[in-house]
Amino acid sequence: MRWSKYFLYTLKETPKEAEIISHIYLIRAGFIRKLASGIYNYMPIFLRTLKKLEKIIREELDKKGAIELLMPVVLPAELWKESGRWYKYGKELWRIKDRKDAEFALGPTHEEIITHIVRTEVSSYRDLPLNLYQIQTKVRDEIRPRFGLMRAREFIMKDGYSFHSSWESLNETYNDMYEAYSNIFKRCGLYFKVVEADTGNIGGSDSHEFMVLADTGEDKIANCKSCDYAANVEKAYTKFNEVIVEDKKPLELIETPDKKSIDELEEFLNLPPEKFMKAFLVEDEEGILYMFLIRGDYEINEAKINNIIGKPWKMATFEALKEANIIEGYAGPIGANLDKVKIFVDYSVRTIVDGITGANKQNYHYKGFYWDRDLPENIEWVNIHVVKPADKCPICGGELEIIRGIEVGHIFKLGTKYSESMKAYYKDKDGKEKPFIMGCYGIGVTRVIQAAIEQNHDENGIIWTKELAPFLIDLILLDLKDEETRNFADNLYKELTDKGFEVIYDDRDARAGFKFKDADLIGFPIHIIIGKKNLKQGLIEIKNRQTQERVKVKVEDFWKALEDILQNIR
Amino acid sequence: MRWSKYFLYTLKETPKEAEIISHIYLIRAGFIRKLASGIYNYMPIFLRTLKKLEKIIREELDKKGAIELLMPVVLPAELWKESGRWYKYGKELWRIKDRKDAEFALGPTHEEIITHIVRTEVSSYRDLPLNLYQIQTKVRDEIRPRFGLMRAREFIMKDGYSFHSSWESLNETYNDMYEAYSNIFKRCGLYFKVVEADTGNIGGSDSHEFMVLADTGEDKIANCKSCDYAANVEKAYTKFNEVIVEDKKPLELIETPDKKSIDELEEFLNLPPEKFMKAFLVEDEEGILYMFLIRGDYEINEAKINNIIGKPWKMATFEALKEANIIEGYAGPIGANLDKVKIFVDYSVRTIVDGITGANKQNYHYKGFYWDRDLPENIEWVNIHVVKPADKCPICGGELEIIRGIEVGHIFKLGTKYSESMKAYYKDKDGKEKPFIMGCYGIGVTRVIQAAIEQNHDENGIIWTKELAPFLIDLILLDLKDEETRNFADNLYKELTDKGFEVIYDDRDARAGFKFKDADLIGFPIHIIIGKKNLKQGLIEIKNRQTQERVKVKVEDFWKALEDILQNIR
Repeated sequence: MRWSKYFLYTLKETPKEAEIISHIYLIRAGFIRKLASGIYNYMPIFLRTLKKLEKIIREELDKKGAIELLMPVVLPAELWKESGRWYKYGKELWRIKDRKDAEFALGPTHEEIITHIVRTEVSSYRDLPLNLYQIQTKVRDEIRPRFGLMRAREFIMKDGYSFHSSWESLNETYNDMYEAYSNIFKRCGLYFKVVEADTGNIGGSDSHEFMVLADTGEDKIANCKSCDYAANVEKAYTKFNEVIVEDKKPLELIETPDKKSIDELEEFLNLPPEKFMKAFLVEDEEGILYMFLIRGDYEINEAKINNIIGKPWKMATFEALKEANIIEGYAGPIGANLDKVKIFVDYSVRTIVDGITGANKQNYHYKGFYWDRDLPENIEWVNIHVVKPADKCPICGGELEIIRGIEVGHIFKLGTKYSESMKAYYKDKDGKEKPFIMGCYGIGVTRVIQAAIEQNHDENGIIWTKELAPFLIDLILLDLKDEETRNFADNLYKELTDKGFEVIYDDRDARAGFKFKDADLIGFPIHIIIGKKNLKQGLIEIKNRQTQERVKVKVEDFWKALEDILQNIR
Repeated sequence: MRWSKYFLYTLKETPKEAEIISHIYLIRAGFIRKLASGIYNYMPIFLRTLKKLEKIIREELDKKGAIELLMPVVLPAELWKESGRWYKYGKELWRIKDRKDAEFALGPTHEEIITHIVRTEVSSYRDLPLNLYQIQTKVRDEIRPRFGLMRAREFIMKDGYSFHSSWESLNETYNDMYEAYSNIFKRCGLYFKVVEADTGNIGGSDSHEFMVLADTGEDKIANCKSCDYAANVEKAYTKFNEVIVEDKKPLELIETPDKKSIDELEEFLNLPPEKFMKAFLVEDEEGILYMFLIRGDYEINEAKINNIIGKPWKMATFEALKEANIIEGYAGPIGANLDKVKIFVDYSVRTIVDGITGANKQNYHYKGFYWDRDLPENIEWVNIHVVKPADKCPICGGELEIIRGIEVGHIFKLGTKYSESMKAYYKDKDGKEKPFIMGCYGIGVTRVIQAAIEQNHDENGIIWTKELAPFLIDLILLDLKDEETRNFADNLYKELTDKGFEVIYDDRDARAGFKFKDADLIGFPIHIIIGKKNLKQGLIEIKNRQTQERVKVKVEDFWKALEDILQNIR
């Protein structure tokens, strides 16, 4: 492609709207242009990378027997009402009406539609399993679209759904998709990590996220330095070795006037936070009161609270606390009316010896708290802590670190959530109607591209890997007014393209520095520079954008040198 | 692809919603499934054909230097307001609001967006011409979606837009696109005709439609049997040889009591319709009255009336007629108050000799009307007739026929309509700011697929051409319980796919008749039938779906026979 005939314009200035580097580069390098908040035009050069990624995705999914179809963007409300999500989904579900006032949604995801398709077409276990996918535009009316394609209102997603007559079959396909996704991101040349993910309030089922590692990633990952364990912090936990001492001190009421927070108590009692058991009190939409207990040095993981309660909740009201005989700021399990509150205790509490906890009495705490002696009987042990760096791995006991990533893929065992609510049944071997067992699998296609940039860039611009680069080679012509030089470059351009290389030929009437800067900014992996001075000495300059190495090679050694660089880039 | 593992289900019954054969077959053969009125799921087999078509389109456009990008589905209202189409477009423009009440439209077409993109990026004539396109989902809230993908609310379109600094340059690209479109439809194996199209009220510019010929097509085409002339009937006209006689009868008032229509007058006066001049009276939104005069045997072409008036109009009100001294049912130019009405006369009137026309007097007409003597001076001659079969070609005088087609492509010289309203300027050689001169080019991608079916089918199903067939070969295994037969078919399947043929392997546990019917219904070009009985005699049966020929060939002659059939199918 001759740049002079192409539609590719870079920008010098950092766009106002962009906060993170990948977003800045996407705009400055001419990949995307904002049309409205969270809505972008994909410029020709972006489309090239997009198609390459889509090709990789299709190839790896097809290998696993997944079948592609295409569902609409405009979706009838009825199906969303059947699943119940019409009512539960927030305003991200962009609800619209047609000229006849019929209700529709712009598709943020397609579980309802695919379930409807499969329940209509498939009636027998003989037709299962099925693994269907699409690559398609998705729309979500995000409250705060930001970071470019990371959290856009319109974006491209690959979403897949599988249907099974047994959990074994689901597990098989799930593992296939795990492999396919790993292959996809490997082929893209990305550093990524597969982490255990929170399954939300569906419960019980497996879920994994594929995270492209980047310091600026929105997601935190607990990663074991010693074994394979890695989990989203929303899902991660550490293992506590319970401590039981024989020789216990008695439980003792101590005055702690106006000392309500752990910080204040620590200072007042001159004790480390590990000595405290703190309480977190909430109330669900039906008015049921919950007390969550955790060691003083840990934060509560709200995702886990969500999973335990399984419905909307808020901070406990004064009335509810009063009824349960709990005093705010001095709350604890002892003395509470246990008929009026459900108590969940984090495993971290099992390490507390001679601890401090609220006494449910204004200005008083207990001292000498031992979990095995002083906790009431009707409690449930849970993991609701947020792991911290240097916590122990729950699998091998090694040290956990907290790293950051960008979620680009997600696989999920849905089970019968949608098939049951939407009455999607098949007839099993035994002649009985059963709900399909389902899995779902997503890749944020446009997000992958930005994540690749967030992971691979330097101060001059993007550094594309071979597989995702919009063009592999930027052939830079200097001194284009010199006929000999221009002819040489023209010929080389022809030779390169004839050999199947994807080349952008920078034949623009512009200065060398300008061309070099663009080449770096856009991040083509290989730059071939043809200039009069070098050529006079029979030399061609080649730059490896990934390593920043520049070499001058003899014209006759050019192809060999190119081959070498190709071997050495990702 | 093994059918037993594929997601492809045919239907026996004709779906209620389908009116035309291509729609019926699309559904029965498992290509599409209705999700809502005018909104369809594209099933896996449809997607295969769709991708083939998209590939052909891309290849032919890329050859002409067109550059692909991708614009969003959700478009901000501001740009539509700038062009003015926000106000002029009917309810087909699906207007929506986001959570913050900001206005958007679901893109029915993208002139505004591309004009915005180009005005932002391009500032100099040096960057022109530009030819940009996308293949993308379009949404139109049709008042009456019907005929499946023919008039859907969500569909896929290839839309392209070119930008120029001169009309010569536009003409060049326009011709390129003319060629590219012709190549695309040729490669698809479709019979089509390029016809002159109505340019609507933009005026002056060229426009051509690409029509796939089919008896059930919605569009009527006037086609010359002798020369190349072909035009949409909305645009077509015939040439009338004016008749002037020396020896004229006097204009004479005749009583025609209660005879208002041409039919009634014909009978009453016993004269053929060619003797009459009839009047069509309308009023535009500003209250201006128009009289259109035409020979009695011709219908008025409303598209041409639209172009002449250039704004919304309705039938003339009684008040307006009265003011212009025109009597309904007895209307004519003579005696009308010419200050109050604009008169347009169709060229057909130039053939009327001793004719009849309204006298603007209740129950009276004039007899002895001669156009060259009796028409007022302030009239305008126009072509507003609908051509009829056997009318004369305006180019060569040959005979016109009226044939039917389905519009699948449209190219259009837009000129500066959008660039002027949206202030999209470039700086020309002379340093002056000028509006871009634009062209636009569309292909109804999903519609092409249905049009192909409408053109190529029989009573058993679809007849695909090679290039658009979802699979070229249906390998039909009979007697799948016979191990030898199954092994033979399995091996042949492998050999065929290894050689690069696209094969669907019907290994389903179903009866022979059922498989044959499906093969015909879906319309795979080549059926290879492997059965125990034939195989025992060393024979394979091959069917050419296009010609319906079946041959039995010796196993050792199979590849030669396949080669022969491949040569002989479209």
